[in-house]
Amino acid sequence: MLTLEDARKALAKGSVIIFAGPCTVVYEGRATSRLGVGERLVLIKKDRSILVHRPTGHEPVNWQPAGSMIDFLTENGLPVIRASNANELLKISFTAQPSLMVFDLRDTAEFEMYASEEDMKKAVLAKPSLVEPGFKPLEEERQVKRTGRVDILGLDALGRLVVVELKRKPATPEDVRQLSAYVESLNSEFGRKPRAILAAPSTTKAARREMEKTSVEFRCLTPRRCMQVLREAKGLDSYL
Amino acid sequence: MLTLEDARKALAKGSVIIFAGPCTVVYEGRATSRLGVGERLVLIKKDRSILVHRPTGHEPVNWQPAGSMIDFLTENGLPVIRASNANELLKISFTAQPSLMVFDLRDTAEFEMYASEEDMKKAVLAKPSLVEPGFKPLEEERQVKRTGRVDILGLDALGRLVVVELKRKPATPEDVRQLSAYVESLNSEFGRKPRAILAAPSTTKAARREMEKTSVEFRCLTPRRCMQVLREAKGLDSYL
Repeated sequence: MLTLEDARKALAKGSVIIFAGPCTVVYEGRATSRLGVGERLVLIKKDRSILVHRPTGHEPVNWQPAGSMIDFLTENGLPVIRASNANELLKISFTAQPSLMVFDLRDTAEFEMYASEEDMKKAVLAKPSLVEPGFKPLEEERQVKRTGRVDILGLDALGRLVVVELKRKPATPEDVRQLSAYVESLNSEFGRKPRAILAAPSTTKAARREMEKTSVEFRCLTPRRCMQVLREAKGLDSYL
Repeated sequence: MLTLEDARKALAKGSVIIFAGPCTVVYEGRATSRLGVGERLVLIKKDRSILVHRPTGHEPVNWQPAGSMIDFLTENGLPVIRASNANELLKISFTAQPSLMVFDLRDTAEFEMYASEEDMKKAVLAKPSLVEPGFKPLEEERQVKRTGRVDILGLDALGRLVVVELKRKPATPEDVRQLSAYVESLNSEFGRKPRAILAAPSTTKAARREMEKTSVEFRCLTPRRCMQVLREAKGLDSYL
């Protein structure tokens, strides 16, 4: 059975601490919130961020960011957690002895985030040379008669119309056929056949065979590369 | 020592489950993310929301909202958690046996959130009758020479200038003096003395004595009432 003294040591040591039990929660800061008695989990992390979780909902009901001043006190023989910073105070008062758990967690892995197709489109619009040098986007999500929406319509360095279709997964024969259908539709609409570029991280073998039968060109473009471009373009933090 | 079978039963029963141990995390959905091996906490709640927490940071590194399909599997003798919905899959694969904890938490308390002074101002602008019938706000945060900023400047039902100062805590003598200073400044600026209203949930005794010496009027306005007004005005969810 761990005690508050163990929690203090764990906090000093940089362990992750969980309290589980019935408590009330008061927050005073920019606004004020009060939460009556209920059974909750309180997580205190290595960086002194603190989260109060109810049994439902993916959001914590209260939380304080990293760097809070955290104190473990006792009021009427029961634990009280105070987490504060310059302008805010979060006070968690247990109404019965909580369970207390301590975990020494080591985690140095890098979180890798890869873009969606929508993100890939944003990256190409931010940096059209991802498709090819001299590519100029004209229109995105253009409706093509009866066949769907083209990701990006643009002009190449020689002024020829180019249809670009973006895929975040290996291109399939179905992707090639879809793009060929756009080419035919745009051909009948404009009276000239556009170039067609399928930009994806790779292709399946079947897709490569399908491409040999058509005029669809392949361009290697990974979601990861797009993410880098977006990151450079506006800073990942503001982007995510 | 709890087993995956215990976790399955706990999930069916609506308990909160925590896994603590080294794992990798893959998310496939609108975007893709990958997180290499590290020691983490995985919380699964009663409503089948799921959170993956690293030892630092107040945000989960991955999560899925309530209503996910959650399965506990075994791969190479180690637990794997799959949380999915129509378009997304979160897969957490442990690389060593995790600790497994189960909590039966009951929590029916209402979360009460009270507004900040900025929120109170928004509420008065949305519903000026909170100050008094016929009140018309003209300007907010008006700079008053050498004395500060007035929360709201407006006209009463008879067309007289009114200065409104909002406080979310019981009004103090200092608040009364501040408002009196605004009155004097505006008097010299406009050549007529505005009415002054201090709107707060209550006053201290000392503030009441101070008010008797001045022309400052008191209006009872609670942050809670303001929160209700904002909630009605645009729905609390979109507001918060």
